[in-house]
Amino acid sequence: MVQAVQARGFAEPTTLVELPDPEPGPGEVLVDVLACAVGLTTRNMLRGDLGDDPRLLPLVPGHELVGTVSGVGPGVTSRWLGQRVTAHFYLFCGLCLRCLAGEEPLCEALEGMLGVHRPGALAEKVCLPARNLVALPEHLDPVGATVVPDALVTPVHVRQRAGIGPGDRVAVLGAGGGVGVHMVQVARLAGASVVGLDVVPAKLSALEDRLGIPALDASDLERVRLPGRWREGADVVVDLVGSPATLAWATRHLAPGGRLALLTTFPGITGSFAPRDLVLRQLAVVGSRHASRAELHAAARLLADGLVDPVVGATGGLPEAGDLLERVVSGAVLGRAAVVVRPVEDQA
Amino acid sequence: MVQAVQARGFAEPTTLVELPDPEPGPGEVLVDVLACAVGLTTRNMLRGDLGDDPRLLPLVPGHELVGTVSGVGPGVTSRWLGQRVTAHFYLFCGLCLRCLAGEEPLCEALEGMLGVHRPGALAEKVCLPARNLVALPEHLDPVGATVVPDALVTPVHVRQRAGIGPGDRVAVLGAGGGVGVHMVQVARLAGASVVGLDVVPAKLSALEDRLGIPALDASDLERVRLPGRWREGADVVVDLVGSPATLAWATRHLAPGGRLALLTTFPGITGSFAPRDLVLRQLAVVGSRHASRAELHAAARLLADGLVDPVVGATGGLPEAGDLLERVVSGAVLGRAAVVVRPVEDQA
Amino acid sequence: MVQAVQARGFAEPTTLVELPDPEPGPGEVLVDVLACAVGLTTRNMLRGDLGDDPRLLPLVPGHELVGTVSGVGPGVTSRWLGQRVTAHFYLFCGLCLRCLAGEEPLCEALEGMLGVHRPGALAEKVCLPARNLVALPEHLDPVGATVVPDALVTPVHVRQRAGIGPGDRVAVLGAGGGVGVHMVQVARLAGASVVGLDVVPAKLSALEDRLGIPALDASDLERVRLPGRWREGADVVVDLVGSPATLAWATRHLAPGGRLALLTTFPGITGSFAPRDLVLRQLAVVGSRHASRAELHAAARLLADGLVDPVVGATGGLPEAGDLLERVVSGAVLGRAAVVVRPVEDQA
Amino acid sequence: MVQAVQARGFAEPTTLVELPDPEPGPGEVLVDVLACAVGLTTRNMLRGDLGDDPRLLPLVPGHELVGTVSGVGPGVTSRWLGQRVTAHFYLFCGLCLRCLAGEEPLCEALEGMLGVHRPGALAEKVCLPARNLVALPEHLDPVGATVVPDALVTPVHVRQRAGIGPGDRVAVLGAGGGVGVHMVQVARLAGASVVGLDVVPAKLSALEDRLGIPALDASDLERVRLPGRWREGADVVVDLVGSPATLAWATRHLAPGGRLALLTTFPGITGSFAPRDLVLRQLAVVGSRHASRAELHAAARLLADGLVDPVVGATGGLPEAGDLLERVVSGAVLGRAAVVVRPVEDQA
Ligand SMILES: [Zn+2]
Ligand SMILES: [Zn+2]
Ligand SMILES: [Zn+2]
Ligand SMILES: [Zn+2]
Repeated sequence: MVQAVQARGFAEPTTLVELPDPEPGPGEVLVDVLACAVGLTTRNMLRGDLGDDPRLLPLVPGHELVGTVSGVGPGVTSRWLGQRVTAHFYLFCGLCLRCLAGEEPLCEALEGMLGVHRPGALAEKVCLPARNLVALPEHLDPVGATVVPDALVTPVHVRQRAGIGPGDRVAVLGAGGGVGVHMVQVARLAGASVVGLDVVPAKLSALEDRLGIPALDASDLERVRLPGRWREGADVVVDLVGSPATLAWATRHLAPGGRLALLTTFPGITGSFAPRDLVLRQLAVVGSRHASRAELHAAARLLADGLVDPVVGATGGLPEAGDLLERVVSGAVLGRAAVVVRPVEDQA
Repeated sequence: MVQAVQARGFAEPTTLVELPDPEPGPGEVLVDVLACAVGLTTRNMLRGDLGDDPRLLPLVPGHELVGTVSGVGPGVTSRWLGQRVTAHFYLFCGLCLRCLAGEEPLCEALEGMLGVHRPGALAEKVCLPARNLVALPEHLDPVGATVVPDALVTPVHVRQRAGIGPGDRVAVLGAGGGVGVHMVQVARLAGASVVGLDVVPAKLSALEDRLGIPALDASDLERVRLPGRWREGADVVVDLVGSPATLAWATRHLAPGGRLALLTTFPGITGSFAPRDLVLRQLAVVGSRHASRAELHAAARLLADGLVDPVVGATGGLPEAGDLLERVVSGAVLGRAAVVVRPVEDQA
Repeated sequence: MVQAVQARGFAEPTTLVELPDPEPGPGEVLVDVLACAVGLTTRNMLRGDLGDDPRLLPLVPGHELVGTVSGVGPGVTSRWLGQRVTAHFYLFCGLCLRCLAGEEPLCEALEGMLGVHRPGALAEKVCLPARNLVALPEHLDPVGATVVPDALVTPVHVRQRAGIGPGDRVAVLGAGGGVGVHMVQVARLAGASVVGLDVVPAKLSALEDRLGIPALDASDLERVRLPGRWREGADVVVDLVGSPATLAWATRHLAPGGRLALLTTFPGITGSFAPRDLVLRQLAVVGSRHASRAELHAAARLLADGLVDPVVGATGGLPEAGDLLERVVSGAVLGRAAVVVRPVEDQA
Repeated sequence: MVQAVQARGFAEPTTLVELPDPEPGPGEVLVDVLACAVGLTTRNMLRGDLGDDPRLLPLVPGHELVGTVSGVGPGVTSRWLGQRVTAHFYLFCGLCLRCLAGEEPLCEALEGMLGVHRPGALAEKVCLPARNLVALPEHLDPVGATVVPDALVTPVHVRQRAGIGPGDRVAVLGAGGGVGVHMVQVARLAGASVVGLDVVPAKLSALEDRLGIPALDASDLERVRLPGRWREGADVVVDLVGSPATLAWATRHLAPGGRLALLTTFPGITGSFAPRDLVLRQLAVVGSRHASRAELHAAARLLADGLVDPVVGATGGLPEAGDLLERVVSGAVLGRAAVVVRPVEDQA
């Protein structure tokens, strides 16, 4: 039997349960989970935002895992055994043009997401399609590495989508969250001048003190002033908040030639734009959806090379998963929270 | 004295007038105009859409010129003398980062446009800043070459902005107009599969018969069907119409990863987008503003190498300029109309 | 039992043999071969150039296959069954960063090549790793589609490596061979002005007559003259011959900013370059190794969309495989030769 | 009269002379020089390597200037007056496709270089074509800013040519020189892991202590070991030394997919390459020639935004120019040396 976090209904509290040991089917692997991060996406899973078919219940959420492969199903190379891994979030087919072109989230035969359409990783063990695996260097701290499969790889993809390069001026709305704290780092790593906007005073301090990123209080967007040197505005705005107010602010503060990167998928939110405005300032509005397996590899290499500082602001065991998630949702956690499934001292 | 087309007020009819010979000032050149195209931009000039300060009156419109340099002002190299040229539309500074980076339309010190903020080229002679000039190969037909500075170079820029490449599926809304007939050609030249949409039956026939481009009647957008092979939709939609209806149609028909290129600047038009939609299909909405001098050069080379067929659907002399423009506005002309200022037989 | 082409020693003639029916192992598929192309790479396989370990003998060559999946081994999705497919040439791992980044030929755990390090496709049936498969549209002619996995996809990759785009001037050395006839088409499709060079008169005629590509006789390289309009030289030279003479010619005929694309791997050949020359004209010398699975998909789409004409200059059955290959090596075949394993009338 | 550094013959020592005040001709500006850097290029100028026509004598060398525009010739906008500026090194035409496309060093009508083919900036005043000017922010320290027009802008261009991005592993041969100390910074700014190689112990220490760049002693290239984590080698090697030994080392230490950037133009040096090697590892050898005016702007912005630390290891007045140059050539100076033409206290 394995312990797992489970929800019996959408928007119901999770409980810790004992489940039978999972068995890897054909093309699958069994992973002993070391740690698994939780964030707003986990909350969205539990609310049914990413899939609300009752047949998906009961639900074991969690997709931001680090673990060790302990079993392989038929047709899977035994080279995986013992390998430290993380996993891609989407249940892509691995066969279509999109999958092969590094656009797994756009898979033509997408079957959903890990932790939604099949049991996730807030458990001692999890079964996954082998094609979802991405190898991690052994020496990476497993708790820190839980940022790789979402909080870090998402910014890695945004950087490429929005074309962030040396000398660009980049503003990040929602910079203190799990994706935000890594987005500001990835933008700076790419050579940009970066400012982070957030509404939580403790996060603003942490951005400045821990990450050395200039931080601006966005509680009253109308009063936000970008640095004076950014005369024409921002070359890139990454909007991790996605409200009508932030969308409007972002467009208004773009320099000519600027790019607005969107990542939010809240149903019912609409933005508006004047073609005249996009043309005269030659702007681009760019949607960005998760990332590829190759980008997961690249994100892991950034950690391994010491180029990014993984920000995990809170940790706990499987029994604390629900509490951790509540703290994340309340805005009290800087960066990601991680559930440490196996004690760290066992991992060496 | 030189003959010129002139309007005494915005939205007033143009007349043919005699004006004193222009003299090139410091940094300027004098160009003997051979031909000058007219299109919807010319109409917008005359309506005051691009500048309606009464001090701009009376107005000599026209910016899509081909001519020969016949004089240089102080500080301008005499190498220009006798050179066949066309010109950039914008009165950019030539000094700022934007100008040097090939983003002249985004110039930090933009002083307006040729034909609006200084007398244009619907005249026997015109004075221009030397930095606006772009040399043309001598053997190019001057009437055909009037497509270079706007109708052809605009698509050349869109191709780069929208990332059109081999195998892409591209739909062009407004394909029978001056920019449209060259946009479909540039997209095909880049290796794309292209369809053109328009509402004028004669233009639809001409797209198919003269250019070999599959054409779709867009009179009732709801009934337009993209080719069956384009299962997921278009990789790129270029919207040269820019109405709320075309904007909505375009977004809806983009394939995952698709790009919507915008070029229209009609005041008061607004589009709306759901961030969720742009993110889940990973779309981009891309404004495109005119082009650079380097792209003018490249456009001329496409003509010179026989890779693009310049479509000039109607011609006339300076006295016919007003009539030609009316015919363009009414939708009766395929591609561009050109005013032939000097008889072609004099040009050899 | 299945019929197969086999060589008992390197550089020995091939014979037609009966072999036991292959069985797909874990992660593998069984493919009923419809057709398989042969070219110089097949000859290199048989000479031992791509691997000469005696344990590889006897050898069933062939990697440029089109077929139908008729069986799947453990761990392989049954969705493959009945699917028309082609296959990637390299035995890549599918797991490393290179594989996931679309650089399968640079796989960190490469296990060789199909037709060299495991039995190839000049046989009625062949077993392959499932990850090597790429789906083909059903309506593609299987004989024409044998160009996809090498003769066409190689140029697709070169186009991207060498940055070939609209208006570029491109010269292809060895334009009449299997890769050459598709390289000139892909370059033209990308909007380039193209000339093809070859030494076989019949190939030169065919390039002009069948493909409409200007062709130059390269028998005496010193006397070759690029088109007069290419004043500064070629923006790209693709050298498919790879002799010291062609390498020197290519470098000399590049325009400033030009790229020399290399594809040949003949042992013992060396070129020389002066850094001064590469710097002053800002040239690049670019190696290009095969292609990715995503590019195989893209190549198939070019055929399906009718954008490329597959050139298969000779066909025969399995018993004729050896003769066909001899004719290719002698230079007598335009484009690729294809072994038709199952009669075409059976394929509908 | 103005003071200037002058050489009466190639390879002769320079002397300080008094020359008549220069007058800006048509299209030219007069610049009051604040500071001018000297480096190996200045030495090459004086040796006649960049032009050895006796009619170029006597020679006022120097091209890496910072100054203030104090006069404009006919046809030049008076907006330049009082502007803090630097200048592009090459005497490009400003009219051809290359010039407009940001490839000024490849100008089709290049007339040579500042400090070689017209008097340079090791003087109190210098006249230049206005098109060579690039505006600098007023608050930049003029001595530090002398790195912009060569030592910093060259790496900015190399970064783009060699495609250096986040996570890349970059080795720089000759990292302690004027270009080298900025190349390592620009590569790191772009997100790369960087190591610097040099042969001067004091430079190796300074790279580590001042710039925080890991430095390797390249005195015996055979014994150089790249970091263990760089398993496959370097993604990019920038060879600022350009000897046959460094060229061979660089090629050998490239990872698959790697790029070798060349910048040296020593006559008579030849490298050799095996196409097989470039193809199998899919390498590229990329020449890089100086930079564009747009890149000069971008380099200045990197300084203004505090993203790069300008390294000027030695300074002196005009009378010390010869001594400074000798110290640079002997390898005793970290980074650039700068001649301070006007005392810094006068510059505020
Ligand atoms: Zn898929
Ligand atoms: Zn400007
Ligand atoms: Zn691999
Ligand atoms: Zn030039």
